Amino acid sequence: MTNTQVTLVQIDNYGPWTVTPEPRREVDLQTLQSRLYADLSQLFGNREGYVFFTRFDNMIAVTNGLDHEAHALVQESVRNRYPVTVSLGTGVDPSPAVALGDATTVVQNGGSAQDADRREVLDGAVLAAADRADDDVQLAHFDVNDATGKYTDRLNEFDTFINIEQGYAALMRYMRQEHDSLSFFVGGDNIISVCPALGEAEYRDAIDAVYEEVGVELKVGVGRSRTAQGAGMAAKHALERCREEGTTVEFD
Amino acid sequence: MTNTQVTLVQIDNYGPWTVTPEPRREVDLQTLQSRLYADLSQLFGNREGYVFFTRFDNMIAVTNGLDHEAHALVQESVRNRYPVTVSLGTGVDPSPAVALGDATTVVQNGGSAQDADRREVLDGAVLAAADRADDDVQLAHFDVNDATGKYTDRLNEFDTFINIEQGYAALMRYMRQEHDSLSFFVGGDNIISVCPALGEAEYRDAIDAVYEEVGVELKVGVGRSRTAQGAGMAAKHALERCREEGTTVEFD
Amino acid sequence: MTNTQVTLVQIDNYGPWTVTPEPRREVDLQTLQSRLYADLSQLFGNREGYVFFTRFDNMIAVTNGLDHEAHALVQESVRNRYPVTVSLGTGVDPSPAVALGDATTVVQNGGSAQDADRREVLDGAVLAAADRADDDVQLAHFDVNDATGKYTDRLNEFDTFINIEQGYAALMRYMRQEHDSLSFFVGGDNIISVCPALGEAEYRDAIDAVYEEVGVELKVGVGRSRTAQGAGMAAKHALERCREEGTTVEFD
Amino acid sequence: MTNTQVTLVQIDNYGPWTVTPEPRREVDLQTLQSRLYADLSQLFGNREGYVFFTRFDNMIAVTNGLDHEAHALVQESVRNRYPVTVSLGTGVDPSPAVALGDATTVVQNGGSAQDADRREVLDGAVLAAADRADDDVQLAHFDVNDATGKYTDRLNEFDTFINIEQGYAALMRYMRQEHDSLSFFVGGDNIISVCPALGEAEYRDAIDAVYEEVGVELKVGVGRSRTAQGAGMAAKHALERCREEGTTVEFD
Repeated sequence: MTNTQVTLVQIDNYGPWTVTPEPRREVDLQTLQSRLYADLSQLFGNREGYVFFTRFDNMIAVTNGLDHEAHALVQESVRNRYPVTVSLGTGVDPSPAVALGDATTVVQNGGSAQDADRREVLDGAVLAAADRADDDVQLAHFDVNDATGKYTDRLNEFDTFINIEQGYAALMRYMRQEHDSLSFFVGGDNIISVCPALGEAEYRDAIDAVYEEVGVELKVGVGRSRTAQGAGMAAKHALERCREEGTTVEFD
Repeated sequence: MTNTQVTLVQIDNYGPWTVTPEPRREVDLQTLQSRLYADLSQLFGNREGYVFFTRFDNMIAVTNGLDHEAHALVQESVRNRYPVTVSLGTGVDPSPAVALGDATTVVQNGGSAQDADRREVLDGAVLAAADRADDDVQLAHFDVNDATGKYTDRLNEFDTFINIEQGYAALMRYMRQEHDSLSFFVGGDNIISVCPALGEAEYRDAIDAVYEEVGVELKVGVGRSRTAQGAGMAAKHALERCREEGTTVEFD
Repeated sequence: MTNTQVTLVQIDNYGPWTVTPEPRREVDLQTLQSRLYADLSQLFGNREGYVFFTRFDNMIAVTNGLDHEAHALVQESVRNRYPVTVSLGTGVDPSPAVALGDATTVVQNGGSAQDADRREVLDGAVLAAADRADDDVQLAHFDVNDATGKYTDRLNEFDTFINIEQGYAALMRYMRQEHDSLSFFVGGDNIISVCPALGEAEYRDAIDAVYEEVGVELKVGVGRSRTAQGAGMAAKHALERCREEGTTVEFD
Repeated sequence: MTNTQVTLVQIDNYGPWTVTPEPRREVDLQTLQSRLYADLSQLFGNREGYVFFTRFDNMIAVTNGLDHEAHALVQESVRNRYPVTVSLGTGVDPSPAVALGDATTVVQNGGSAQDADRREVLDGAVLAAADRADDDVQLAHFDVNDATGKYTDRLNEFDTFINIEQGYAALMRYMRQEHDSLSFFVGGDNIISVCPALGEAEYRDAIDAVYEEVGVELKVGVGRSRTAQGAGMAAKHALERCREEGTTVEFD
């Protein structure tokens, strides 16, 4: 069984801020968002967590091993360096979707995402040190078979992107509906899914389902560990084995 | 008639680099990618261009007003600060999709995206100063009606994300197929489309089509200018008018 | 004759901010300061200006070619991305020290550096396009002879630093007192001086004076151009010629 | 007794890189250096260490609590995101100067700072967990009395800078010669000294010596802790007490 700790990061009152007193320059918003994401990647990553950019104003992180104090430090570091603040809600569950649901509820209970008075919520369940196990987190790292040869080197970049995007959209829905998993596009032709304790058959079915729906061929490496960092690196090594051996699903 | 100059930014040989000599830590890759995007946002943005993160290893920019020298400076700045280099291909056409097609061909002609010997391609058509006009670029800024009330404050964040993502996926395909437009998710519930000279009816139809396909309600502000920056800011102001007046399509 | 345009960048009310409501973490302050400097380097640098970190809460820039609109954009970009704002004062004079004096007065007239109500001063003289010439800016790039062999590879790093620092301190005072020049340490063993129209003899005397005072041997390349960027690059090439030919003063 | 762990961070072969194949643009070098410093601030800071920018190509860090594995991760993170690599040498001693001497020797033994073949040295003593104590690190945070009123709001910024700089230069030499301490300018009018177990009298003498030599009036807060972060924050609080009570030396 997995036991995933999920954190929802939500910028406080961001929508209104972007247009007050009048619309801010898009290049500055893009810079702000992507740098905030980069900083959170490092802040969570230095504690073996993963954060996904999702919608940028709302980001989802896997944070096994980070207690409230570590979260508070992330929150403080953002406040000290950005013109915006962030709320953080946490949740823990064998099902990543349930954990995220709990994390989201924590933030929503603090007020609306566009509530000018809600600032820096920090609450929710964290996985106690005593309850942690070496297989708490399962991550699956998917990529598209020969994306460079089939798409990047052949189509115009937007049409390549449409193909990759359709593969991602199909996978994200399938994994959410069938397996309570949270799947994130991480650039190029790569997708990382935060999963419960799924086996080879489930991944094979997911890959088949995506191929049937949109014609995009995926392969996947799966890793399991105490933290997102450990599981993610194990998944990458497993995916390398897919590449070397021409296989479709590999577990580390 | 529009005359959009599009630049394809492609990291040279990035896929192999990410796994050589063995897979690099995901948090560092995420940091590298998002910071490179932030820097390109500023480098192009300081010259009134827009860049979209697309797949991060391939980014698409609207660059009216930037000649080869300005592109070379961007390329040099990346080389001086990152462990990777970028190839840049440009194209110009009333149809954004055709312009991107030309830009992509320039890069592809230089070699594969995974060719270890291809480095820093820089070529393609640029719009001569004498040929530039005040309505060369048309941008449409879409967002989702009451996304906070309907999704963010109510669903778990991943399910909110699925809804937004489906709206984006439907719009990107529709605008590409029907109107040669390139649509990019820019965070939150916002999508920016790079368009030819479309009118109100076309945007209304697009919004209807997305609603029919996935049930997501959009509105849009449209701006036109000599540069991406000008058109984008005009589009934002038009979108503000939609918000104030409860309308669905506004032109600046 | 030179005609240097100088900008003083002063963070508004920074001292009080760093300790309100209680002292902020030093690592966050260091990160904020050095990133703000990096961003200003790019923002001014993209318009061929140079900015020096000086005290970080006060930075000095050479900005020939940047009008008030360009300065306003820099100011806006900082406001959009940082928890602090900046005031900008400009001045123009053949003497860099006088130009900086004027620029400083502009900011001081707006209120104290620790005035909670002073925000985003933007004023002062700028060099009109019609008055600009190809030799408006003269920069001198100094470095220490064989710093690696004499210091870095031999002493502990702090003692190396003391030597470099003493060379810098002696030079900065000499150049300020004798020649109205502003000298900035830019890392390693490098110093850049913003100068009026000095000749070879003056640089030779400066190098002799530093050697007599603190025993540090310098050499220098000097460049002249319409902008800081042009003059600085010319100075670097001249300094390379010193290295190749074993000379002490070279003009580009 | 203190027991300071010091790390020397030296960019490998940086000097030659900055001029190969020809001099790189200064704004890019400044951006690279200050961002690398910002990233190291976060990487060390997330583990309660402090890093000082010193000469930027050589930086000095206080790293009690960071073992070789933590250092290796910092090294890897730099390699994954920058066009340069860093060597890291560590040392431990009650005297900060001796600790730095040992750390420097480690790096120097690996080869010259301008040796093209030396890459990513990582070696030296680290303080074992069992040997750590709650008073291993003593930091002193100095600032200039009423710097804003006496200098910033009154002189031109360069002359203010000369005053602050002279205070710093005098203090750095005095503390190095008399007390084996390493003092670093950290922006504004702030200096942080890494010290052995000095008492109030020694700080009072240092402040007197600086005043006599260059006429700059300092005050100081002193903190002691298991880590740089703890000692530094304690020193800041002590310095606040100086401000509130008009005193010259305060211990936390």
